[in-house]
Amino acid sequence: MTKKQTIEEGSEFIPKFDDNGLITAIAQDAKTGQILMVAYMNRQALDLTIQTGYATYFSRARQKIWKKGQESGHLQKVEQILVDCDQDCLILKVNIEAGQCHVGYRSCFYRALKKNTDKKLVFIADKDYDPQKIYQ
Amino acid sequence: MTKKQTIEEGSEFIPKFDDNGLITAIAQDAKTGQILMVAYMNRQALDLTIQTGYATYFSRARQKIWKKGQESGHLQKVEQILVDCDQDCLILKVNIEAGQCHVGYRSCFYRALKKNTDKKLVFIADKDYDPQKIYQ
Repeated sequence: MTKKQTIEEGSEFIPKFDDNGLITAIAQDAKTGQILMVAYMNRQALDLTIQTGYATYFSRARQKIWKKGQESGHLQKVEQILVDCDQDCLILKVNIEAGQCHVGYRSCFYRALKKNTDKKLVFIADKDYDPQKIYQ
Repeated sequence: MTKKQTIEEGSEFIPKFDDNGLITAIAQDAKTGQILMVAYMNRQALDLTIQTGYATYFSRARQKIWKKGQESGHLQKVEQILVDCDQDCLILKVNIEAGQCHVGYRSCFYRALKKNTDKKLVFIADKDYDPQKIYQ
């Protein structure tokens, strides 16, 4: 097999981290299929996620390892990890008990582009919790 | 409102492109919720997607605009575009009629990390079509 075939058709997990040492990870609700959030992992965050069973990311803003929910308590219990064809993107199928977005919504994707416009958003969800009560 | 509030709580679409002028876009099957692929858009690709109603990306490998399915015929008809809290990631809810991964699967995410391992993948899907018949 060529290297491309090994990556695309093989059964070896060879996650490809980018120039910053990060890989994109999508958290998807294992029960409903709703996409909850998109974040990034470095090698250590991925290893911790696999070892602990709880989603752990690398915060680009804070430049440090970040266990999702460490502050809010809104953890993501990982049921399954999927990888795409070129192994540069992951899906975490997660079980959750609370809203996952720091703004208060279940998913970070709580707005949609309004039909026939290119600048206007419409809200498509209600808040799940009050972030002011969760984050000090 | 602060700039952060405008981005997170406002109804103005202000997509944030990264240092390479790209934004991450997730194509999700509008009917089933299955995540099909992850790709990138520059401003032009996003505008073309909005204007034409068909998903158009920017190929990082080929460094050019790429209408999904232009070669394979496996187009993505866009039903809705969602944006996340900090507006640096999009979801395209798409309607499809054929497999979306160039390897032949419906979704690029056709493998999962085997339970209790960190290196072994298991295939979780069968091929949808024969890529050798589609791509010349």
